[in-house]
Amino acid sequence: MSSAQNLFSEMDHQWMAQALQLAEQGLYTTTPNPRVGCVIVKNGLVIGSGAHLKAGEPHAEVHALRQAHQNARDQVKGADVYVTLEPCSHHGRTPPCADALIEAGVKRVIVAMQDPNPKVAGSGLARLQAHGIEVASGLMEGQARELNVGFISRMTRQLPYVRTKVAASLDGRTALANGESKWITGEPARRDVQHWRARSCAILTGIGTVLADDPHMDVRTIEIGRQPLRVIVDSQLRISANAKILQGNALVVYANAAQAKIDVLQAAGLKLIQLTDASGKVCLKSLLSHLAELGINELMVEAGQTLNGALMKHKLVDELVLYYAPVLLGNQARGIFELPTFTDMKQRIGLEVKDTRQFGADIRIIAKPIYSSE
Amino acid sequence: MSSAQNLFSEMDHQWMAQALQLAEQGLYTTTPNPRVGCVIVKNGLVIGSGAHLKAGEPHAEVHALRQAHQNARDQVKGADVYVTLEPCSHHGRTPPCADALIEAGVKRVIVAMQDPNPKVAGSGLARLQAHGIEVASGLMEGQARELNVGFISRMTRQLPYVRTKVAASLDGRTALANGESKWITGEPARRDVQHWRARSCAILTGIGTVLADDPHMDVRTIEIGRQPLRVIVDSQLRISANAKILQGNALVVYANAAQAKIDVLQAAGLKLIQLTDASGKVCLKSLLSHLAELGINELMVEAGQTLNGALMKHKLVDELVLYYAPVLLGNQARGIFELPTFTDMKQRIGLEVKDTRQFGADIRIIAKPIYSSE
Repeated sequence: MSSAQNLFSEMDHQWMAQALQLAEQGLYTTTPNPRVGCVIVKNGLVIGSGAHLKAGEPHAEVHALRQAHQNARDQVKGADVYVTLEPCSHHGRTPPCADALIEAGVKRVIVAMQDPNPKVAGSGLARLQAHGIEVASGLMEGQARELNVGFISRMTRQLPYVRTKVAASLDGRTALANGESKWITGEPARRDVQHWRARSCAILTGIGTVLADDPHMDVRTIEIGRQPLRVIVDSQLRISANAKILQGNALVVYANAAQAKIDVLQAAGLKLIQLTDASGKVCLKSLLSHLAELGINELMVEAGQTLNGALMKHKLVDELVLYYAPVLLGNQARGIFELPTFTDMKQRIGLEVKDTRQFGADIRIIAKPIYSSE
Repeated sequence: MSSAQNLFSEMDHQWMAQALQLAEQGLYTTTPNPRVGCVIVKNGLVIGSGAHLKAGEPHAEVHALRQAHQNARDQVKGADVYVTLEPCSHHGRTPPCADALIEAGVKRVIVAMQDPNPKVAGSGLARLQAHGIEVASGLMEGQARELNVGFISRMTRQLPYVRTKVAASLDGRTALANGESKWITGEPARRDVQHWRARSCAILTGIGTVLADDPHMDVRTIEIGRQPLRVIVDSQLRISANAKILQGNALVVYANAAQAKIDVLQAAGLKLIQLTDASGKVCLKSLLSHLAELGINELMVEAGQTLNGALMKHKLVDELVLYYAPVLLGNQARGIFELPTFTDMKQRIGLEVKDTRQFGADIRIIAKPIYSSE
């Protein structure tokens, strides 16, 4: 098996780029599965292509093989297969894709990346190779990993990929002192937020935001046929059973609460979970582990300074999506991250900026925290 | 006299662009005079060009005429003159440029903008016209105004153009809680700050910054043959006569101070001025008026949250130069603008972003506050 990038031809890149584009069709819908695309090529022509769109439905390879077979069964023999993720070799909700490719008699299988689950990584390719199929891995791997950043995180770290969204003024304020935050950013930025929500398996917020804004935190402007799980950190169960955020699929996480309140909320049919840390607050690390067990790949955080700061303090934030509106709110307004007092500039949290872009009058910065190893 | 932009030819634009480039040669040095460039053209060729470089030295038109005369005296007769600012018609430290152009027998004078001083605007052009010279105004006026934004401000509003520089983290913090601020931004951003200092006639800071950092606030990395006036707002005269910022040309502004302290500082040869407002603080508006009287065109503010906020609250800031470093410092760190508590989102201060650019890892945003008319 070869993995060096220069072993791939220009055409290889073209077909894999097409497979990646197909994979993106599942961006909003494959949860908890990864987004995967597949292109089958014979004599320089695409004879089949497909994407995985929804858990329980066929994988990308199966869609592509079906199309190729419909076109002309013989052609599939000896074809090249480009797939953005290593074909599975185990029986899940669908039979193993590796077996389907072997049966079809393809000549070569090129994958962008291996299965991120360390326990099975490489086994699909090995199975293909054992049946005389040429295999290669690592073509356009960066893009492929980006597409499944949450699935990879869950498979390798048993944690969701945590993306914190912030809408702030240029002096770093997310709400007035009285909690008012509607609206700091403009319509184009808020529309962009819908895209991030739509690709998330769950949205996390804190009770402060729920009490101040009573938000739905749902996907409104994009039709995706599902809504992300809404997760509310509410240490003392202050939430009302009538909160709008509880109207969909929701989970309320508490640390300590009166049994009467627990009873009321459970009687209203709400899902509650108690996760307490040593200091009597909600244990955020345990919460994230629990969400990973529920199959949450990408978790979007839309919270205030307290929960934002707590997640950052515990080094649990993987990515920041920061929208800055060209306004000033002054020091009395609320900040972005409640963090311990730093006494030395060395304690600052470094960020690696990945993207800077304009949305209407607002600026969006995507950055990743660089946590010190201590 | 014509002023419509479409009356100017492509060549007119080319020569005026050249005059504007010449004017920029005086960016760091003409204070308190405006930056002016001049190009003299005959038969499609430049026969003379010049820039005003230093107060007391010849104006741009004089330099250009001298060069043209040296080349061949006759050629100047019937030439076209492009000058970025209306030629003066009064005797200042040098004789009026309008007279020199009349004497030289030029045919046409095109200016980018009229004299910003409303009392004399148009009189230079009128004088030329009275002597049979064709005149036109308004060619590339936007660029010309930008170049002399401070001079125009002083002439039209009797106030300097106030440019506030901020170096902050992406969560809007300029210093740790203990005052530590070295360094938030990187070398390329700090080098860029030198350019803004160099074009400023004066730099304004507050006593808090002086006590915390003991800065020089001088121009170090560019040789400009002068240093901006350093102005320190120090309500109670807490400054030490040994503060580094007092080593150059400095002015300390106070509201109320013990006579003993005043005596000590004056004995050390320092310039002090008392400007008290109704609440017993330094009257910032009076300070700016005073600086305009001293010939300060562009004033750069490099201060902390208190002075930054006070200037913003009084609507005295014309432009913000905001550098954001990709780091987080948390809510305990110091903010950018100490403003009154806003209770309604309508009270926010809107900004118009003029430029967004990368300096190393940092982002620089140039913006202008949009003050409500109340």
